[in-house]
Amino acid sequence: MRATVLVRPKPGILDPQGAAVESSLRQLGFPVGDARVGRVVDLEVEATDPTVARSEVERMCEQLLANPLIESYEIELEDGR
Amino acid sequence: MRATVLVRPKPGILDPQGAAVESSLRQLGFPVGDARVGRVVDLEVEATDPTVARSEVERMCEQLLANPLIESYEIELEDGR
Repeated sequence: MRATVLVRPKPGILDPQGAAVESSLRQLGFPVGDARVGRVVDLEVEATDPTVARSEVERMCEQLLANPLIESYEIELEDGR
Repeated sequence: MRATVLVRPKPGILDPQGAAVESSLRQLGFPVGDARVGRVVDLEVEATDPTVARSEVERMCEQLLANPLIESYEIELEDGR
C-alpha cells in the first residue's frame, strides 16, 4: 500500500525556509502570506490493512520521519483513509 | 485562500534523500520500499476565486517553488479544488 506523509513545522515554531519562500515570492510580485515549508514522504508499505498500515507509518513518523517536538505529521493512505 | 503545494522528484530522477530515508527505515525494521522525499509548501494567497488562485499558484511553482525539469507539483486549495 502506498502511503504519503506530510511533515510540517508546528504553529509557532520558527520556519526560516518558509520565511525565505515568502520573501522571494513577494519579490516576484506574488502577495502571499504565512508561507510554511515542510516535507512530503511517499513510500510503499507491506501492510494491506489500512489500520495496520497507518499504525506502522505512525511509528515511522515518531522514530524517524518527523521530530515530534517541533513538527506535526499527517498520514494519507492510497486506498481508504 | 489557503493553498498547499506538493513538490516531488519526477519518476526516474535520482532522489538521494528518499534513498536515505528508505535505508534508515529498513534498518529500524520497517520493510518499506520506493521512498521518495519532496517538499510541501503551505501559503495564503489573496485570490478568493479558486480558478484564479490555482493559476497564480501554478505561476509560483513554475517560477520558484519547483524545478519543472526534475520536479512535479500538485496544488490543493482549501475550498474547492
